[in-house]
Amino acid sequence: MKSKNVRFFDPQIELSHGAGGKASRRLVEGLLVPLLLEAGGGPDELQDAAYVDAGGVRLAMTSDSFVVKPLRFPGGSIGELAINGTVNDLAMGGARPLALTATFIIEAGLATDELAEQAAAMAQAARRAGVAVVGGDTKVVEHGKADGLYITTAGIGLVDPRVNLSARHVRPGDQVLLSGPIGDHGITVMLARGELDLQADLVSDTRPLWPFVAALVDAAAPGLRWLRDPTRGGVATALNELARDAQVAVVLEEEAIPVRPAVRGACEILGLNPLHIANEGQFLAVVAPEYADAALEAIRRVPGGEGAVRVGEIRETPQKAVLVQSPYGGSWMVDMLVGDPLPRIC
Amino acid sequence: MKSKNVRFFDPQIELSHGAGGKASRRLVEGLLVPLLLEAGGGPDELQDAAYVDAGGVRLAMTSDSFVVKPLRFPGGSIGELAINGTVNDLAMGGARPLALTATFIIEAGLATDELAEQAAAMAQAARRAGVAVVGGDTKVVEHGKADGLYITTAGIGLVDPRVNLSARHVRPGDQVLLSGPIGDHGITVMLARGELDLQADLVSDTRPLWPFVAALVDAAAPGLRWLRDPTRGGVATALNELARDAQVAVVLEEEAIPVRPAVRGACEILGLNPLHIANEGQFLAVVAPEYADAALEAIRRVPGGEGAVRVGEIRETPQKAVLVQSPYGGSWMVDMLVGDPLPRIC
Repeated sequence: MKSKNVRFFDPQIELSHGAGGKASRRLVEGLLVPLLLEAGGGPDELQDAAYVDAGGVRLAMTSDSFVVKPLRFPGGSIGELAINGTVNDLAMGGARPLALTATFIIEAGLATDELAEQAAAMAQAARRAGVAVVGGDTKVVEHGKADGLYITTAGIGLVDPRVNLSARHVRPGDQVLLSGPIGDHGITVMLARGELDLQADLVSDTRPLWPFVAALVDAAAPGLRWLRDPTRGGVATALNELARDAQVAVVLEEEAIPVRPAVRGACEILGLNPLHIANEGQFLAVVAPEYADAALEAIRRVPGGEGAVRVGEIRETPQKAVLVQSPYGGSWMVDMLVGDPLPRIC
Repeated sequence: MKSKNVRFFDPQIELSHGAGGKASRRLVEGLLVPLLLEAGGGPDELQDAAYVDAGGVRLAMTSDSFVVKPLRFPGGSIGELAINGTVNDLAMGGARPLALTATFIIEAGLATDELAEQAAAMAQAARRAGVAVVGGDTKVVEHGKADGLYITTAGIGLVDPRVNLSARHVRPGDQVLLSGPIGDHGITVMLARGELDLQADLVSDTRPLWPFVAALVDAAAPGLRWLRDPTRGGVATALNELARDAQVAVVLEEEAIPVRPAVRGACEILGLNPLHIANEGQFLAVVAPEYADAALEAIRRVPGGEGAVRVGEIRETPQKAVLVQSPYGGSWMVDMLVGDPLPRIC
């Protein structure tokens, strides 16, 4: 996971650098990690959730900024995303969420009702996730900046001592599980902008993932290798990062990957791959083969996890790649997301 | 510190709600605390640094967003502020900074060199403060939004077990100490905008405050009641909050308050009170009288603390007010900051 071989030569920052795909990874690994983390005495990776030893207690710590447009969309809102996104980064680190902070960058002129509604949505999401918001900050910028509201949340969680998650532990033969249908969030937000003449009965999948992780840990801790919520960049980007970091191949069975018809239809019209679309309430788990059945059953027993499936496995080759096998015998490689087809999705 | 008596009726958010003064306090206590914290099961105050019990370890946790304009100014930059601001909120909670996260909201079109320079400034500030940046996030918004760059940092720190800081512990007779001259940061940033035909040989006071707190704790822990870095809203707002929360009077000796001539001059021209100007590297300490000398000496022994002074004391009346005594015998009340004379200062 060293960043030594990545260089960032782009003269200025573009939207694609925030899309969570290849350009984001170059920005983070080629610029921010060497300058900010390594030079500052931090770890050699800007992670979603970092591990911190706090007086002998193993904590996970994470932070995310949210700039989604519009502020509200079917099934969710920026406030709900801001809580669930940070709760989920902790959960993917094997940590029970403990406390969050929330900071608001507010555009002058924002209706108080909108801010109140977002704060209430955050409180509700926090209660649902079993975590308290303990502090924060508010800044106001001039009208015309900030699209109404940007929210940043940070969180800490207690790492379950039974888990030890890392791409380095992933081995050929390990099974790849997926918690449910993909692409709902990205397509929902895109449709909510009303820029396309498309309608679909679709809602964001935003939800807290800790209950699933808690069940997984109870059922399959010794076999649990790696967890990731495939947000920006989608499943393809998350698994390409895994393939690269673990120096393995991830082989997916196309037929096994759940995609709702509305998402598949929108993707076909837009020329997008559902594997590149952002999710906010699904996760990928890589599990040792002997624990795969127990892990899958554990996820399915949690309300909302009924749609969990095995979608593929880890192989030795083609190393550092994600291969999708079609039910008709062919196969194709899927890369990380390139460019930013759906900006400002979270 | 209950928010029960505050209501927020303003129909929309204005710049003054982000200024750190009276309007900010109404927004936080009248809207965000009841909706977000109390309803979410959190504490009854949206604090700068909150205390969290993490598996038996007492942590402080804090987060701040930074939207300062311009991104660089004499003596500092948004990156340096973002590290020191969060480190200082932890220090004011009596906590040794342990780990930070940093998230960036970047305007498309920002020069990579600018981002690189800010990341490097952050790394340097983190090293100086003895804390590591362990994770983060980047989002990109369209050109025309975000003024180049907004940075949010969150931090956790280990609370020194010898301290127990709270406005509730402040008693009449306690002494008020100030670490050095006030107003440098706010006036420096205002002058750096070049909107006023004023020049001054002034630099921001941004710096990490933990070394001073560490020395204070060693020298005077049992007498240490309350600490605060008077950022937005300045010394007057911080002390009015103390007076209100502790139900006491804070009586300041005007002559004792250090203000550089350049700051005093700019304030006179602008019709501002130096007591309302933001600082980023000074702090106020309230100390039991028998520990005041030891505390002052401890601050002065730390490099950069030579200018620390006793500026006043706590009295019983006029309750919930800050009174400034002139050397010529008169006295006047100074309120919290009202409005936002210097927006986007941090």
